Amino acid sequence: MTKKLLPILFALACSKMAFADNALVLQTDFSLKDGAVSAMKGVAFSVDENLKMFDLTHEIPPYNIWEAAYRLYQTAPYWKAGTVFVSVVDPGVGTDRKSVVLKTKTGHYFVTPDNGTLTLVAQHLGIESVREIDEKKNRLAGSEKSYTFHGRDVYAYTGARLASGTISFEEVGNELEKKVLDIPYQKAVLEQDHLKGNIPILDIQYGNIWTNISDELLEKSGIKKGDQACVEIKEGNQIKYTGRMPYVSSFGEVEEGKPLLYLNSLLNVSFALNMDSFSKIHGVYSGADWNVDLHKCQQ
Amino acid sequence: MTKKLLPILFALACSKMAFADNALVLQTDFSLKDGAVSAMKGVAFSVDENLKMFDLTHEIPPYNIWEAAYRLYQTAPYWKAGTVFVSVVDPGVGTDRKSVVLKTKTGHYFVTPDNGTLTLVAQHLGIESVREIDEKKNRLAGSEKSYTFHGRDVYAYTGARLASGTISFEEVGNELEKKVLDIPYQKAVLEQDHLKGNIPILDIQYGNIWTNISDELLEKSGIKKGDQACVEIKEGNQIKYTGRMPYVSSFGEVEEGKPLLYLNSLLNVSFALNMDSFSKIHGVYSGADWNVDLHKCQQ
Amino acid sequence: MTKKLLPILFALACSKMAFADNALVLQTDFSLKDGAVSAMKGVAFSVDENLKMFDLTHEIPPYNIWEAAYRLYQTAPYWKAGTVFVSVVDPGVGTDRKSVVLKTKTGHYFVTPDNGTLTLVAQHLGIESVREIDEKKNRLAGSEKSYTFHGRDVYAYTGARLASGTISFEEVGNELEKKVLDIPYQKAVLEQDHLKGNIPILDIQYGNIWTNISDELLEKSGIKKGDQACVEIKEGNQIKYTGRMPYVSSFGEVEEGKPLLYLNSLLNVSFALNMDSFSKIHGVYSGADWNVDLHKCQQ
Repeated sequence: MTKKLLPILFALACSKMAFADNALVLQTDFSLKDGAVSAMKGVAFSVDENLKMFDLTHEIPPYNIWEAAYRLYQTAPYWKAGTVFVSVVDPGVGTDRKSVVLKTKTGHYFVTPDNGTLTLVAQHLGIESVREIDEKKNRLAGSEKSYTFHGRDVYAYTGARLASGTISFEEVGNELEKKVLDIPYQKAVLEQDHLKGNIPILDIQYGNIWTNISDELLEKSGIKKGDQACVEIKEGNQIKYTGRMPYVSSFGEVEEGKPLLYLNSLLNVSFALNMDSFSKIHGVYSGADWNVDLHKCQQ
Repeated sequence: MTKKLLPILFALACSKMAFADNALVLQTDFSLKDGAVSAMKGVAFSVDENLKMFDLTHEIPPYNIWEAAYRLYQTAPYWKAGTVFVSVVDPGVGTDRKSVVLKTKTGHYFVTPDNGTLTLVAQHLGIESVREIDEKKNRLAGSEKSYTFHGRDVYAYTGARLASGTISFEEVGNELEKKVLDIPYQKAVLEQDHLKGNIPILDIQYGNIWTNISDELLEKSGIKKGDQACVEIKEGNQIKYTGRMPYVSSFGEVEEGKPLLYLNSLLNVSFALNMDSFSKIHGVYSGADWNVDLHKCQQ
Repeated sequence: MTKKLLPILFALACSKMAFADNALVLQTDFSLKDGAVSAMKGVAFSVDENLKMFDLTHEIPPYNIWEAAYRLYQTAPYWKAGTVFVSVVDPGVGTDRKSVVLKTKTGHYFVTPDNGTLTLVAQHLGIESVREIDEKKNRLAGSEKSYTFHGRDVYAYTGARLASGTISFEEVGNELEKKVLDIPYQKAVLEQDHLKGNIPILDIQYGNIWTNISDELLEKSGIKKGDQACVEIKEGNQIKYTGRMPYVSSFGEVEEGKPLLYLNSLLNVSFALNMDSFSKIHGVYSGADWNVDLHKCQQ
């Protein structure tokens, strides 16, 4: 070996260590009570021991694809382009739902069964490309006999290979049409002076109510800081709550126990009780059936 | 310093950073509600700040050594040789149970009180060597007065030193006999055309029933995909469930709410209800007392 | 570029990778059920992809500042100097509580709203310096419109920048007086032969009772291993428990179900039932109101 080559070899050695810079972020409905998530991480670690692994959440309620979709939408924008999300909420495991990787226009990757999980990130981040995972090439060796743990054998394995640069996005498998399976839900609209939308999710730890109505739409409706909003919440056709509350910047602006309208961390219209649970006190929950109608109170 | 030495020094500096390639995987019954697990990680981080740390689970039910044993058995095969597991479910802390490190024939290390935790990994992965932790050498400095947190002061500390290469396996302490404390349990057997075994654990998040009967034994019994299996489950002498269900590849092959027999991710015979909890609906749980007897239904 | 520069560049490239050696340790009352903690980690990862991130706990009961204070006090000593803790239990978000970074005399950093969270680490580790976070400089770009997720936009962001060396402690913002907001609580004292103290926290997973009475104070009181301690526990003025128990080194020294006095992992006087929950059986909990009075039993 000549002296001239040495520095280049060192540079390569060093750069290899810094290679796995794309985070792998895992989401499941497995909980952390058993060893399933750890087995997924063991597989990913075996692919590349320098991979940076993080958890989104493993407490998606069992089989709740909508909530899985929402959590990806909620957090992906705070992760760098190149981040690889693996989401396994998969009631249809073993049936013919496709295993795919979505690359969004923002450069994020989502490895998941195409069962509705991609609904919101596809709409909000844009579809750059969808590929079907070729399980002949992208499946943990020796796992062929097991039909029921794709999360470990296919999704964690493929996600780790993609995040570490072991395979390129093209090597995932064949490109599909630029679409994903969509779960229908009510979009936010302004009709005359009424804002209509749905309640996709609760801020569950505090019992706050999150809607899909954006700050821009709120502004368009003419409701300003300090105004009173008249709010009606329905589950299907049944009225579950009617009341008025001020639009404020922060919880501390109303007395303890009093309702408020605020913009949550996604800048969407939300309802809360200061220091109490709006959800529990008023029996309001979330899902495609839960709708809200609000306007600036007259007088 | 001569120019010739420089590249070598750089190489050493670089290689040091890549040194800690053996994962440290932690399991306890502490939960994540308080600071105990974080203190363990702080100690491990102090040993080597480049150590890769992962959690198996910290939600082992308090004092449940059997479940600790099962989780190690369930996940260890998915982690690389060289991985160091620290398991702290230690109702006998402060008594004379030994603190040991088991090296299996597969090259995995297990740092734990020898109280039954090693039952299943010793049987399935094979015992290469057992060493008793020499607490004179392998104990966090300044922790001598505390009798009750071996998890942090001895196990996490020793596990981190082993995973990081700070000490060799030999430096753990004296070698013991090649055996560990065993918890007795019913092995899976085929008697005539009846498969007998036990229910070591539930797939708790979904309420599925996992047995210790392997795919090979199932095949030997003559039950094939599509066949109906007649299943009886007992707790001790008391019959808790009798019923028939098809052997299928995946949940989606039966209607919602219907029972099925499938191979779980460990390729063991398991029972489930599609989209419901077999455990809750039928009052079936797990443990040494829970036995199963099944055969191919006649007619 | 001359050949002489090459090794220096490689050295820089390598050293950069090893730079982020200060751990970032996160604590919140958000739970891990939604995406909030993951969004915080995404922001921190974007600051420095080589940052080492750990969780203290995210299961602080909502709004419980005292417990947040206790968990920092309990774990910080096991983390190296330079470690940056981010603690977000922030019922006053959006009001005028200050956002600060405390540097303790031990060299640990704590990034948090100054709402009582720093009470115990300030007292036990000592105040080296307190700086107010300058949100003009230390706030995630694009987050100005959101008033309600300082945990992500200010605390995680500032903590990551500090831990990674992106900013120095001085660049956090202006230095304040060397004090923090204190939550009052009863200190441990020896009055004649009676030890008095409070119950700051439970060992919640096992139901053990932890006091703030140190091993030194216990020794001063004349109670030795094997002695019987007479214990009275009050909530405010109401007696909740009276009983006697031996001072032992470990749980195994008393029969199952029997009470014992021991030193916990912080070397503080604690009460437990061997293999059962002292808290549940006797209805004893923790907080500023919960006091204990104990002495060596006569006869």
